[in-house]
Amino acid sequence: MYKIIEVKQSVFEDNNKDAQRLRDECKEKGVFLLNVMSSPGSGKTTTLSRTIEQLKEVCHIGVMEADIDSDVDAKTISQYGVKTIQLHTGGMCHLDADMTRQGLYELGLENVDLAILENVGNLVCPAEFDTGSALNVAILSIPEGDDKPLKYPLMFQVCDVVLINKMDVLPYFDFDLENCKKNILYRNPNAKIFEICAKDGKGIQEWCDWLISRMKEWKDEYGVSK
Amino acid sequence: MYKIIEVKQSVFEDNNKDAQRLRDECKEKGVFLLNVMSSPGSGKTTTLSRTIEQLKEVCHIGVMEADIDSDVDAKTISQYGVKTIQLHTGGMCHLDADMTRQGLYELGLENVDLAILENVGNLVCPAEFDTGSALNVAILSIPEGDDKPLKYPLMFQVCDVVLINKMDVLPYFDFDLENCKKNILYRNPNAKIFEICAKDGKGIQEWCDWLISRMKEWKDEYGVSK
Repeated sequence: MYKIIEVKQSVFEDNNKDAQRLRDECKEKGVFLLNVMSSPGSGKTTTLSRTIEQLKEVCHIGVMEADIDSDVDAKTISQYGVKTIQLHTGGMCHLDADMTRQGLYELGLENVDLAILENVGNLVCPAEFDTGSALNVAILSIPEGDDKPLKYPLMFQVCDVVLINKMDVLPYFDFDLENCKKNILYRNPNAKIFEICAKDGKGIQEWCDWLISRMKEWKDEYGVSK
Repeated sequence: MYKIIEVKQSVFEDNNKDAQRLRDECKEKGVFLLNVMSSPGSGKTTTLSRTIEQLKEVCHIGVMEADIDSDVDAKTISQYGVKTIQLHTGGMCHLDADMTRQGLYELGLENVDLAILENVGNLVCPAEFDTGSALNVAILSIPEGDDKPLKYPLMFQVCDVVLINKMDVLPYFDFDLENCKKNILYRNPNAKIFEICAKDGKGIQEWCDWLISRMKEWKDEYGVSK
């Protein structure tokens, strides 16, 4: 089961400052906030399902599913036995820090050490709004084409990790994997890139191992004891 | 060859009124404005290439390629021998009526009877801004999933036509075609739906025949003589 929240627009004028406040609060409470962004249909929900399967025994996960409407994704994720909340944005094309906070408080910061935000499916606007996350992940799927980092610069600049998804259908599309990686690194030379197939689970282990080690680093860096 | 224009943000507060003004001007000048919207990577540019191949002998086509950055698409389209303009939105996630007007004036209303706007790849924001178009087309590709009309309600409400693209890869995805159509018609019972494959050209003829007949109706309805 999951709850549906109609998130309210932020009262804070400066989202960047507010995001920093939320980031500090998350550090204090030991909650690693993972912000997952992509185009519609890139496989965010399936990737999260696989990630949860891998990690639910090693950490307490809470998931926030942001959508303009519908609860299709929350329904899917809640079946994986983690606390799930559906955030309805009321037409808004992104989440900001305060909207994220409303979801986190509903999850309960005390109960969670990995909070995952599935942002609205949109390669433009979510990149413009810092959610207060510890880590930004972008998913880019093979059918979308290898030129996307050229066309949507900010998304690939702000993300720490890019998961290239739907690797199983690579043979059926004109997609140049090396060119795609080159385009990603052109936008962000520090981006970490994983090739995955959320459908059959390929590459998920490597991504999850890396995520766990990143969370450990984060805990050590900020002296998080939880 | 094509020109790159950095479009300026609209000075008009009421985009709906401004869109109506632009629509009236287009009728007067006999320019049928087609607004093409979709997620990133759904195949807008390939679909337009195929459409231009079919129609360039029967009407004067001008194309506006809207992107946040890059001129990948304008480069592609200009090879088809039609007047092409690249509109850079400077980070903006959509085009409004005045931005569209800047592009149309650059194309020259006198020279064109079918003006095609390839909107920014985004299933959310472009649906919120009337561009002054005579016809709105949404492209939904098979890899994105059949649930998209449920998650992105406004896009499917405002579009007159939905082109279901990448039909060639249907066997490789969990995509229920009938369910997709049901979801589209749930959002917009009047939507016209075509199944196409822009890559191999399947279904393009039917879509173009329909478009031509729709343009004729429009000319008759508004007494356009051009």
